[in-house]
Amino acid sequence: MINEKNVRLGKTRSSIRELFEYGKKRKAEIGEENVFDFSLGNPSVPAPPEVSAALKEIIDTFDPVLLHGYTSAQGDYSVRKTVAEYINSRFKTVLTADCIYMTCGAAASLTITLNALLNAGDEVITFAPYFPEYKVFTEHAGGKLIAVECEDETFQIDFEKLKKALSPTTKAVIVNSPNNPSGVVYSEKSMILLGQLLEEHSKKHNNPVYLISDEPYRELVYEKSVRVPYIMDFYANSVVCYSYSKSLSLPGERIGYIAVNNKMKSFEDVYAGVCGAGRALGFVCAPNLFQQLVKKACGLTSDVSVYKKNRDVLYAALTEYGYKAVKPDGAFYMFVKAFEEDAKAFCERAKDFELLIVAGDDFGCKGYARISYCVSPEMLHRALPAFKKLAESYKK
Amino acid sequence: MINEKNVRLGKTRSSIRELFEYGKKRKAEIGEENVFDFSLGNPSVPAPPEVSAALKEIIDTFDPVLLHGYTSAQGDYSVRKTVAEYINSRFKTVLTADCIYMTCGAAASLTITLNALLNAGDEVITFAPYFPEYKVFTEHAGGKLIAVECEDETFQIDFEKLKKALSPTTKAVIVNSPNNPSGVVYSEKSMILLGQLLEEHSKKHNNPVYLISDEPYRELVYEKSVRVPYIMDFYANSVVCYSYSKSLSLPGERIGYIAVNNKMKSFEDVYAGVCGAGRALGFVCAPNLFQQLVKKACGLTSDVSVYKKNRDVLYAALTEYGYKAVKPDGAFYMFVKAFEEDAKAFCERAKDFELLIVAGDDFGCKGYARISYCVSPEMLHRALPAFKKLAESYKK
Repeated sequence: MINEKNVRLGKTRSSIRELFEYGKKRKAEIGEENVFDFSLGNPSVPAPPEVSAALKEIIDTFDPVLLHGYTSAQGDYSVRKTVAEYINSRFKTVLTADCIYMTCGAAASLTITLNALLNAGDEVITFAPYFPEYKVFTEHAGGKLIAVECEDETFQIDFEKLKKALSPTTKAVIVNSPNNPSGVVYSEKSMILLGQLLEEHSKKHNNPVYLISDEPYRELVYEKSVRVPYIMDFYANSVVCYSYSKSLSLPGERIGYIAVNNKMKSFEDVYAGVCGAGRALGFVCAPNLFQQLVKKACGLTSDVSVYKKNRDVLYAALTEYGYKAVKPDGAFYMFVKAFEEDAKAFCERAKDFELLIVAGDDFGCKGYARISYCVSPEMLHRALPAFKKLAESYKK
Repeated sequence: MINEKNVRLGKTRSSIRELFEYGKKRKAEIGEENVFDFSLGNPSVPAPPEVSAALKEIIDTFDPVLLHGYTSAQGDYSVRKTVAEYINSRFKTVLTADCIYMTCGAAASLTITLNALLNAGDEVITFAPYFPEYKVFTEHAGGKLIAVECEDETFQIDFEKLKKALSPTTKAVIVNSPNNPSGVVYSEKSMILLGQLLEEHSKKHNNPVYLISDEPYRELVYEKSVRVPYIMDFYANSVVCYSYSKSLSLPGERIGYIAVNNKMKSFEDVYAGVCGAGRALGFVCAPNLFQQLVKKACGLTSDVSVYKKNRDVLYAALTEYGYKAVKPDGAFYMFVKAFEEDAKAFCERAKDFELLIVAGDDFGCKGYARISYCVSPEMLHRALPAFKKLAESYKK
């Protein structure tokens, strides 16, 4: 009688959440220190100390009526100006405050953008493995998500498969790099090719395809030699969905932004569509205190060296034990090949060693498992023998 | 090509916002002190001093990883428990933490609830005058908003008109008391009648009608003798959409909750629908710092005596000048009868006296204008001669 689709969504937790809940129960049974929980992408590194200081300074010095008052729906003008200028200082963009729309984090950035762009029946392409909520967000906006498999083992975009998937009803393509769950950074060459291909496709059908870049992990890259290409530098019809959740370790505070490329022809309509969708979804404005924080903390990041060390330790150990994975360049996930075809069975067996890892099936990619290594280095060290035993259990 | 409905929503500001923007321009032209801006419902009273102290204490004493980390989608358990217990202490409810879903404010509470309940084509009834975004929220959720006119002059529910409007496809009724824009508190008698009527209608069609109470103004009531009835005490199929925006003067921080009545038969489905809709709309969780604040500040309010004084001064003066209005019992709005049939023309003429007030047409009620008196008492005093001149201009 009521909305069955949303009831079902509310009742079926994602398997990531399911595993997380199992972990909580298991920790209560055998002790927190005996469960090796690699299920969630919840930052273990605290926000940089400047964040607490800045929050308190803002609370102490701002007029509370203004500080806690509504901002315009797009966000405080001076905050948006700071964000636009910061992006321009890093990339070849010429964004203004009026290209930026402050949001309650990456999920909101995506739902607002998808609701701005899609009409019923439109197709949205993404590259598997992909963050499972893309499907939920796309379907709520009336669209259909088409997952295009990445190249085997490298997890870079497979352009032959992409060409086959593009259709006259493709309205948007979502890229997520550094990628959840593979940790892969899509190469600059890939981004250039992607831009060219979408340009040609848009012209051929006289119907622009929008490129949406979901960027919660942009700042989480571990080698100076690795650059995460900025899609606006390669393609005009592009929208960046950003979040400070991981870069500033503020996932619970819900703060991010949408940047609409002002080089696109339909810029005014797309930006208006973003404003309209934000209004229809009930967002009103992004939390003002955290908007003001962004103005002060633009460019700061948490101490991501912890994740780099975790990556190095984990990758070295797993490789030694016989696991196969792309060495992740970014984010805090490693996507390992399961030791049997059925990754769900593999992840079930991992539980015998108190290891909580998520089957790749949920990310549209069978035969793999995701390890979220945003954990304490101490726990990671203690978990290594369990990974070893899991591998050995397949050699018997 | 992109979503035209959302583009249009983004381009057409509500006339309230339009007027507010006009006010900003006008203030720049003739000086802030010469424009009497009664357009927006933005609290002028600061958050109580306990709010800043509590925020700083939370920042200083909580582990930042937990404080700024994700909570469960429904909200932090201990916060929800506090909210449920606080509601139970005031009303005849027996809510538990699992009846509460923390949200990013009242608009989010409404969009999530409507998306949980509605299927395409369902009807939602509300009482005119009403907050104009109800239409936007209902339509985005696939429904159709039906406005039922209130009784003339008292602005209480007109039950004869309501009976005619109820249909087999009525899925929900939204009440908003204290009301924006009339300031009227719906009487206990009305709530009892409403409960009985919806009960009968639900039985007759074997299809529950849900009563949604939009309560951002619950704490803004000016006489001890006035009690705002709690719908859960009168009707099982009820959902309360609450916000701390006005009670704690935190409209820009986006914090509120949905309370689902556990006395309804379909409780588990409705609560799951709320969780699913929140997920599909991209809300993830309500801002954690402000969730923790709610735990500490539950029951606190800003100094609403300022609004009461404003009401008394404004009502006495306008009555003396010949205006007609219900004396508002709550919220911070007064809904005055225009001196001509066309309230838009009346509000245009008000601009000649630098008075910014909003035509009732936008609230589904012709012939009236809304005065938002959440302004500084000093500005209100200076504005009175302008109200007088406006009235006199119609006596010539």
